Amino acid sequence: MRILGVVLAAGQGKRMKSKLYKVLHPVCGKPMVGHVLDVLDTVQTDRKVVIVGHGAEQVKTYVGDRAEFALQAEQLGTGHAVSMAGPLLEQEDGITVVICGDTPLIRPDSLEAMIRLHREQGAAATLMSATLDVPQGYGRIVRNEQGHVVRIVEQKDCTPEQDAIAEINAGTYCFDNRKLFAALAQVTNNNAQNEYYFTDVIGILREQGEKVLGYCTTDPSEWIGVNDRIALSEAEKYMRERINRQHMANGVTLIDPASTYIEKGVVIGADTVIHPGTALRGRTIVGEDCTFGPHCDVTDTVIGNGVHITQSVLSGAEVGDGSTVGPFAYLRPGAKLAGKVKIGDFVEIKNAFLDEGVKVSHLSYIGDAEVGKNVNIGCGAITVNYDGFNKHRTIIGDDAFVGSNVNLVAPLTVGKGAFLVAGSTITHNVDDNDMAVARERQVNKPGYADKMRSKFKAAKESKKSAE
Amino acid sequence: MRILGVVLAAGQGKRMKSKLYKVLHPVCGKPMVGHVLDVLDTVQTDRKVVIVGHGAEQVKTYVGDRAEFALQAEQLGTGHAVSMAGPLLEQEDGITVVICGDTPLIRPDSLEAMIRLHREQGAAATLMSATLDVPQGYGRIVRNEQGHVVRIVEQKDCTPEQDAIAEINAGTYCFDNRKLFAALAQVTNNNAQNEYYFTDVIGILREQGEKVLGYCTTDPSEWIGVNDRIALSEAEKYMRERINRQHMANGVTLIDPASTYIEKGVVIGADTVIHPGTALRGRTIVGEDCTFGPHCDVTDTVIGNGVHITQSVLSGAEVGDGSTVGPFAYLRPGAKLAGKVKIGDFVEIKNAFLDEGVKVSHLSYIGDAEVGKNVNIGCGAITVNYDGFNKHRTIIGDDAFVGSNVNLVAPLTVGKGAFLVAGSTITHNVDDNDMAVARERQVNKPGYADKMRSKFKAAKESKKSAE
Amino acid sequence: MRILGVVLAAGQGKRMKSKLYKVLHPVCGKPMVGHVLDVLDTVQTDRKVVIVGHGAEQVKTYVGDRAEFALQAEQLGTGHAVSMAGPLLEQEDGITVVICGDTPLIRPDSLEAMIRLHREQGAAATLMSATLDVPQGYGRIVRNEQGHVVRIVEQKDCTPEQDAIAEINAGTYCFDNRKLFAALAQVTNNNAQNEYYFTDVIGILREQGEKVLGYCTTDPSEWIGVNDRIALSEAEKYMRERINRQHMANGVTLIDPASTYIEKGVVIGADTVIHPGTALRGRTIVGEDCTFGPHCDVTDTVIGNGVHITQSVLSGAEVGDGSTVGPFAYLRPGAKLAGKVKIGDFVEIKNAFLDEGVKVSHLSYIGDAEVGKNVNIGCGAITVNYDGFNKHRTIIGDDAFVGSNVNLVAPLTVGKGAFLVAGSTITHNVDDNDMAVARERQVNKPGYADKMRSKFKAAKESKKSAE
Repeated sequence: MRILGVVLAAGQGKRMKSKLYKVLHPVCGKPMVGHVLDVLDTVQTDRKVVIVGHGAEQVKTYVGDRAEFALQAEQLGTGHAVSMAGPLLEQEDGITVVICGDTPLIRPDSLEAMIRLHREQGAAATLMSATLDVPQGYGRIVRNEQGHVVRIVEQKDCTPEQDAIAEINAGTYCFDNRKLFAALAQVTNNNAQNEYYFTDVIGILREQGEKVLGYCTTDPSEWIGVNDRIALSEAEKYMRERINRQHMANGVTLIDPASTYIEKGVVIGADTVIHPGTALRGRTIVGEDCTFGPHCDVTDTVIGNGVHITQSVLSGAEVGDGSTVGPFAYLRPGAKLAGKVKIGDFVEIKNAFLDEGVKVSHLSYIGDAEVGKNVNIGCGAITVNYDGFNKHRTIIGDDAFVGSNVNLVAPLTVGKGAFLVAGSTITHNVDDNDMAVARERQVNKPGYADKMRSKFKAAKESKKSAE
Repeated sequence: MRILGVVLAAGQGKRMKSKLYKVLHPVCGKPMVGHVLDVLDTVQTDRKVVIVGHGAEQVKTYVGDRAEFALQAEQLGTGHAVSMAGPLLEQEDGITVVICGDTPLIRPDSLEAMIRLHREQGAAATLMSATLDVPQGYGRIVRNEQGHVVRIVEQKDCTPEQDAIAEINAGTYCFDNRKLFAALAQVTNNNAQNEYYFTDVIGILREQGEKVLGYCTTDPSEWIGVNDRIALSEAEKYMRERINRQHMANGVTLIDPASTYIEKGVVIGADTVIHPGTALRGRTIVGEDCTFGPHCDVTDTVIGNGVHITQSVLSGAEVGDGSTVGPFAYLRPGAKLAGKVKIGDFVEIKNAFLDEGVKVSHLSYIGDAEVGKNVNIGCGAITVNYDGFNKHRTIIGDDAFVGSNVNLVAPLTVGKGAFLVAGSTITHNVDDNDMAVARERQVNKPGYADKMRSKFKAAKESKKSAE
Repeated sequence: MRILGVVLAAGQGKRMKSKLYKVLHPVCGKPMVGHVLDVLDTVQTDRKVVIVGHGAEQVKTYVGDRAEFALQAEQLGTGHAVSMAGPLLEQEDGITVVICGDTPLIRPDSLEAMIRLHREQGAAATLMSATLDVPQGYGRIVRNEQGHVVRIVEQKDCTPEQDAIAEINAGTYCFDNRKLFAALAQVTNNNAQNEYYFTDVIGILREQGEKVLGYCTTDPSEWIGVNDRIALSEAEKYMRERINRQHMANGVTLIDPASTYIEKGVVIGADTVIHPGTALRGRTIVGEDCTFGPHCDVTDTVIGNGVHITQSVLSGAEVGDGSTVGPFAYLRPGAKLAGKVKIGDFVEIKNAFLDEGVKVSHLSYIGDAEVGKNVNIGCGAITVNYDGFNKHRTIIGDDAFVGSNVNLVAPLTVGKGAFLVAGSTITHNVDDNDMAVARERQVNKPGYADKMRSKFKAAKESKKSAE
């Protein structure tokens, strides 16, 4: 049987107080509507229709070809919103999942279980529910003796008995597709708000003698709909916990899961230990036996086994087995470290390949470069790769030694085993095993320090007295 | 009707185990007594009297002219403490709020509601109460059939029925001022501790047939009195949550509110996103559409719109629209960035104006300087602004290019469009469009690297064999 | 009476999904079995036997001479495991504590109270229990009318009445030693799993008419046994809270205890304030009136009074009274700061003594050095201590001034009051009060900047058109 998906993403989200359209607000790095489409993909939905309205263009741009779109030009209620999918879907036979674009925490397994219940029981509609300690404020689920859903009662319409019902409507549904659109055609706006309420569909189906079921989820986070930034932060927290628990179950140690920020899709090997304040984002892949943090921020980076990274920022980099990075290092896109490379403190690497055993221990910048095996880059050495217009490359052969505070003015080729003397500005190529030096000889001026101090002191005093 | 305030701030706070006087311990960056005075200001208190005792001088120095002071020289109990305000206040007609200096979480709206209740009901006294799941240990509120407060019973004096009372005394009160001081005069120290208990005032007023009311707050944090560092950390947490919720409601995204530290008074524009581990302190003002963090620490800084700051420390700085800062940058007092400035990694800026479009990408220090539009400061370039006695200024014209590892020895003026060659120490002024160079030519010594290595290796081995 | 301890540490810990043996996983920096041995030491255990099996060698290496060992070569159940201690202990008279190596949160005072109860009541066995809101899944404690323990019922064997029992077996026991081993000899493996269950001992003792007691702990964390990384993170959290509360009680301010990571054994003086994201590890000792953080990572470091450290990493260092470090500084092993030293941003210190009043304000590396009183190290100055083979020392006399971007090529001695000019590479010793300079004079080339720009621009354009 075909699965169809309708995602409600047309509301404005006023309480977000945002220029960004509500369903585009990210949770753990991904826009909410993206999470909802992920869930629909997991249950192998054949067609997905996103109902767009406010911010339609941005939503369509983000969603791209992951879904079809139906425009709800006027906001006449949720029933009206779903009916916009009619022209696209009403001729289909199948099960239609109706889901809100602001419920990023619906679990694939819950959705699957709901669909299974729906199909096996031959229901016309099945809704997802949750049981709350404090259900007040939410639509309550009234069931009959058979356990079938009779109706959804909004808070304001609750009798005292209904007010005591703990089961609430979580806002996710599945339907027999044809019955859904047939029922939708009968929904009216004869109510105080003059809106077409989607939940009226349930009553209409019941009146037709159809079976309506409820699938009650046990995860209290699933029914969260994000309407403001407070709920957004709660959704983020639940999603974070869910992701973190999965990594821990897989054999990753998180010293403080509450302060560990891993985006969906990041891969981490067993026995890797993550210290607090660390974020792993995007398409990051991490091997086994690594340690991170505290306080690393890693995006779109591939990291081998046995790598140790502390207090550093990495983006678009590759780090080979057994390398160490930080504290206080910055690997930018195109930084590619082979195995056993050491990147120390206050070091930036950008668009550069560092071969096995390279050491860049402190206060260096290596950009647009190729550095051979076992090269030692001295403290403060810098590739001068930019003339204000062009970026030039620096190539350094295996086993070369680059002295402290050396400037490597690119384009430049330094041969294997070459030795560049500390404090030199190297502007011409250096052959294999050559030594290069470019600095002035030292002159000591006896007693001159005192003279200078007297001069500086006098200047200070004259300035003071002038004030 | 006049509002008078009496703040109890004379106790020692032994359990804080501190050299700092208790009410001066900060919560979210502000001493507790400061929060209490803020609340009194919000309800437009006409006169505020702070009762000081232990650490009187420091408290008076902090409070300054925000309040009058009464000294409690001996610690004879809370009733004695309040009576110290008598000489200043007893001739006033009005409502007197009595509040502890260690209850920083009292909400202005609760205090206002309590005063309103007190005034509208014509009470002689109204106390703030709270309902706890575990009330044991706190003074219980006994009410009569009319709901009036009959007395406060301390835990040790509770009958079994009283022990079951969930409503406790939160320790904040308002009184008819004249009745308060008249009743205080009747409080005795005929008890085990030989202390004058302030709560005896309630019984005295009741005996006089006066009406005593209770205003029950619903926020469980309000009644927290800070007596040790554990309670201090809890107060900090509640205050932090309260501040953070307000910013989220205003349209600011906090990725992890539990790890976001914003002091009271900080202003943040909508659609700004704050990543974990970030602190915004003091008089910091932030525009819209900015991103912070992770791990920024920002104090007394004014930040425009669309600014992106990561892993950086800013203090006393200004950052213009569209600028980026970090990771690992340090902006110190007087750092003033115009729009679209780029401050990269391992860069310090101090007392310097950087005009629009300036780039300082890595490993630089710019201090005591004025840098013109679109100037590019190369990696490792440094203003040499200090001679051990005096600080000198560096002025760089628009569109100049400062090469990598250049030393700008101040006082120095570099003209517009000037080009300073990498590795140069610039000691004299450079005119517009001039190029300046100050470095030795490179000499390559063929095969010399091998010779040096042999020498170094031999030294290493001889040292080893000597050991 | 002698106290004997048996620590169960032979299980594999499959759900940890780890190459590291379960009881070696650290909690707050110390392997779990280490915490368990600490607790046994606190109650003055005379002999401790660790039952090893999986990973026996690594466990023995870690435990060393803190305990004796008994090998459980085959995993035939917990009863079998304890019986392995028989050859070592069965001839002893005394009280035997049986404790799991994966319960790092047992409190010394609980263990002591359990032993006291056991001894005073003359019990044959006493087990530690806990009361849970949701006891389902755990072995339930059945007590008789006298309050004695009758048996432990596993979840699967619970009657409905037993299922309602909230008291569960926490898995820590004490026994009369001889009765324990006698009973163990009677345990059989006649059950579904064909395992020797340790808890059968309780039933055997009861059948013999012995008295079995239960000591119910009130701390919900104590009974946690760590079987996977999720439980590991929970144990870490509880341990962290316990350590942090102790420091707060002692007068240390933790701005956010949930984000403060202090290992057991760290010593911190009163009135020290720790900002979020800070870790204090190993043998770190901190004085009074210091501030840390945010985001410091300090290991094995001794810190005096009134020291202020922000966003920095310290390891194996010493920091004298009144010094300041950071933001973004890195003190490595052997960094030894006397009083009132200032280490600024982007500074690394390694194996170097900095005497009173030294300032290293920014972008410097000082390694293998001795720096005299009040020396000012200019921005970007570097000790060139490594030639690829040997590390050499730099010695700088009191009151010397090291200019910006100076390279100090070691071995080097700079005299007192010497002045090293900015941008110089100093290769020879400098006498007291001498000035040393090693840089080329500046040449300005009029109009040359424009020419270079034209050249660079042309190169950029030709490159573009070539693409």
